[in-house]
Amino acid sequence: MIKVIVNGSLGKMGKVLTDLIMEDKAFELVAGVSKYKNDNIDYPIYSSILDVKEKVDVIIDFSNPDSLKDLLSYSKHTKIPLVIATTGYSDEELNMIEELSKEVSIFHSSNMSVGVNLILKLVEISAKALTNFDIEIIEKHHNKKVDAPSGTALMIANEIQQVLNNEFNYGRHGKNEKRKENEIGIHAVRGGTIAGDHSVIFAGKDEILELNHIALSKEIFAQGSLKAAKFIVNKENGYYNMKDVVSI
Amino acid sequence: MIKVIVNGSLGKMGKVLTDLIMEDKAFELVAGVSKYKNDNIDYPIYSSILDVKEKVDVIIDFSNPDSLKDLLSYSKHTKIPLVIATTGYSDEELNMIEELSKEVSIFHSSNMSVGVNLILKLVEISAKALTNFDIEIIEKHHNKKVDAPSGTALMIANEIQQVLNNEFNYGRHGKNEKRKENEIGIHAVRGGTIAGDHSVIFAGKDEILELNHIALSKEIFAQGSLKAAKFIVNKENGYYNMKDVVSI
Amino acid sequence: MIKVIVNGSLGKMGKVLTDLIMEDKAFELVAGVSKYKNDNIDYPIYSSILDVKEKVDVIIDFSNPDSLKDLLSYSKHTKIPLVIATTGYSDEELNMIEELSKEVSIFHSSNMSVGVNLILKLVEISAKALTNFDIEIIEKHHNKKVDAPSGTALMIANEIQQVLNNEFNYGRHGKNEKRKENEIGIHAVRGGTIAGDHSVIFAGKDEILELNHIALSKEIFAQGSLKAAKFIVNKENGYYNMKDVVSI
Amino acid sequence: MIKVIVNGSLGKMGKVLTDLIMEDKAFELVAGVSKYKNDNIDYPIYSSILDVKEKVDVIIDFSNPDSLKDLLSYSKHTKIPLVIATTGYSDEELNMIEELSKEVSIFHSSNMSVGVNLILKLVEISAKALTNFDIEIIEKHHNKKVDAPSGTALMIANEIQQVLNNEFNYGRHGKNEKRKENEIGIHAVRGGTIAGDHSVIFAGKDEILELNHIALSKEIFAQGSLKAAKFIVNKENGYYNMKDVVSI
Repeated sequence: MIKVIVNGSLGKMGKVLTDLIMEDKAFELVAGVSKYKNDNIDYPIYSSILDVKEKVDVIIDFSNPDSLKDLLSYSKHTKIPLVIATTGYSDEELNMIEELSKEVSIFHSSNMSVGVNLILKLVEISAKALTNFDIEIIEKHHNKKVDAPSGTALMIANEIQQVLNNEFNYGRHGKNEKRKENEIGIHAVRGGTIAGDHSVIFAGKDEILELNHIALSKEIFAQGSLKAAKFIVNKENGYYNMKDVVSI
Repeated sequence: MIKVIVNGSLGKMGKVLTDLIMEDKAFELVAGVSKYKNDNIDYPIYSSILDVKEKVDVIIDFSNPDSLKDLLSYSKHTKIPLVIATTGYSDEELNMIEELSKEVSIFHSSNMSVGVNLILKLVEISAKALTNFDIEIIEKHHNKKVDAPSGTALMIANEIQQVLNNEFNYGRHGKNEKRKENEIGIHAVRGGTIAGDHSVIFAGKDEILELNHIALSKEIFAQGSLKAAKFIVNKENGYYNMKDVVSI
Repeated sequence: MIKVIVNGSLGKMGKVLTDLIMEDKAFELVAGVSKYKNDNIDYPIYSSILDVKEKVDVIIDFSNPDSLKDLLSYSKHTKIPLVIATTGYSDEELNMIEELSKEVSIFHSSNMSVGVNLILKLVEISAKALTNFDIEIIEKHHNKKVDAPSGTALMIANEIQQVLNNEFNYGRHGKNEKRKENEIGIHAVRGGTIAGDHSVIFAGKDEILELNHIALSKEIFAQGSLKAAKFIVNKENGYYNMKDVVSI
Repeated sequence: MIKVIVNGSLGKMGKVLTDLIMEDKAFELVAGVSKYKNDNIDYPIYSSILDVKEKVDVIIDFSNPDSLKDLLSYSKHTKIPLVIATTGYSDEELNMIEELSKEVSIFHSSNMSVGVNLILKLVEISAKALTNFDIEIIEKHHNKKVDAPSGTALMIANEIQQVLNNEFNYGRHGKNEKRKENEIGIHAVRGGTIAGDHSVIFAGKDEILELNHIALSKEIFAQGSLKAAKFIVNKENGYYNMKDVVSI
């Protein structure tokens, strides 16, 4: 049984994760950390991770950038492996995380879904294999999402750009010009309650390859973090991400 | 057997159409009209429709706006029903066509595919039935197409606009704002040799309806014009289009 | 405000529905009926609908066939309009429902989703318009579903059969024969937690029309029943279903 | 310029291939072999490959199993690399091909499309990465196809079976039982003029990955054989297939 601290345990994703852990015999929820309060919980909870005394095997973090300093300080001191699923870090903060990975094993990904990370790998392979195919990305999300295109669509586009050095084209309206060979079209569809849908289209002469990932709920991100926790718990110091898990 | 003149019989679409007619026992190709010359054809061909002496039941036009004057003049004089599949007319030319339809039965559509025209009808019904659904259109075409979005995507968007009075939104990149209730997102994907693919997405609370049409070749437009010819051959004077056929 | 009794209010669908009603200002939940008990509810609850004394505008039923007799008896006596969303009735029971609709307005559908019922209508129109197209149905559901194909897929297939008089073909493996013109292929995909996905494919010569409905949760069936309730509340006696709502 | 003999040059696929070669500056069509006759061709043609005297770099074979003996005999004698795209060999014939590959470099695949072969690779990776996902295959072909499911669908299913040791389930109608964990559902859709469409669906808890390949014409198989010819022309003796090309 893997003993876990959840940092950010009363946030939206933290609640999804703690519910999952309590149903999963492979894990034991030893403590939670949250700035919020809630009396109806069945595990010890602390307002700062620095106060946690219990011994655990791994920390999973779904909090926010503000709590990073305490998190890294605690991990540095205890050498407990760390899974970071929080997003929105500055470059400086990202450097701090990477720096600590020389002393502690750290897993960090901005999308913990196994499927999305597999897509990243499949896209890389496809972009190398399918020379002279045109690549377009369509992402679909609910009508409350403010950013466009999605971070995940950009992760995918960047993965392709590392192989093919393409330009991004976000909207073709009124341009009246043919598609350039080296562009990637990126399209942001918004509607209803779509949780997250990403399609990568490789269109060549008389054949089309499409890789599509559909998320049906937020739970998959919590599930992904548990997969990450299992992966990292006995790994040597280093900076890991979902592509390491998927490539096994 | 329906006797046909094909106006523009040696153009790209004209060839596809004359091949179809010669294989179809319901039709007889009586004459062609073209500014091009070709000795390897098995039907009488004229450089102007005004020279055609044969009696026929219907004229099918896949030519260009330049030949409209002769076409309308011939049709006005002979009262032969007319199927017009040419695109790119000015408003003035469109008025001339509509004006003549008081004296002759005229069928006119900028997309002769039965499927696309059925989609227009289905979209109208869906837009009325699915209140509070967000509507987005994705069209996909080959990488040589210069205009974006496609004329057919705009036909669909206009159909919706007549019901719901929406705004069009052609690209969301960098806007960082939530989707407005009354917008239609329109996305133009370009790649490979895709002949023509149109999807209309109605996304509501926890359910999605998608209407998708895929064209696999140009032949469907020729097929559509024959369907139109059968429809119009015994109709009273008037201005008809594919929606009249589809609604039967 | 429309006053409602929910028959079957503590069942799986009943809970989804009562939650919705309590958030919806257009409705007031006056009473529930259930054989289960639960003290944590905020509305009067009865073990039989015959005991309900409150006056209401409409009854919504998500229960099971066992409670039909009391339900019809109560509705006959009070003349309160009735929305029946329960499935699994025998032919005899269906007849009883239809019989009562001469005295009371009754709304009955085995799938309350607006989108699915719109699909039924669109499929009917398409089957009439697209002569010589081959029709295939693909439905996808979670891996716990025991029946195959889904009841909704059969509803769609029956809708097509009324237009075209087709045969159903449930699996082509090992037949080694060409598709018959008048068959409908029906395919049942099972996997993961898919809530419900139905596609109707019309494949003709070089063009394909696909109508696709995706359910993302059970809430849409509860939403549909409220739409039905609004529709029926002031209607004359008669037997109504979702197609009446969608056709508005 | 790579000099080529096309074995089976006047068959359906042979014609598509010779047309392609004559437009491609990287290749020179030195001779064709066919049992058919045609005077309107611009290259030397022989009724048996054993009569060809011209020196070439590679042989591409789109013929039928009957001509295998001559083909292998010629290749064994001349040591010219061989691309075999013919299908329908017996096990004994397959052994003969593999045996010769100890002396000559031979490329053999029953589907020469780069995209389909990439799909095979992506499916293998995905089946390993996505533990506890349910896998289903949907293939779509025109209504004239007699075999079901398609050979390519079976290639994909076998690829998955090598990883997961699944059972195949070809039709669920009337079984009324839940999906087994280790089955692969295989569904054969038939309609219109669909050239070839293969989808592999990995459905897990709240996420779905779908890999889809669409063929729009037969030309892609000829293109694939040229890609194979380029690949094999300077390779050491051995038995190669499209996965070797795609994995580069």
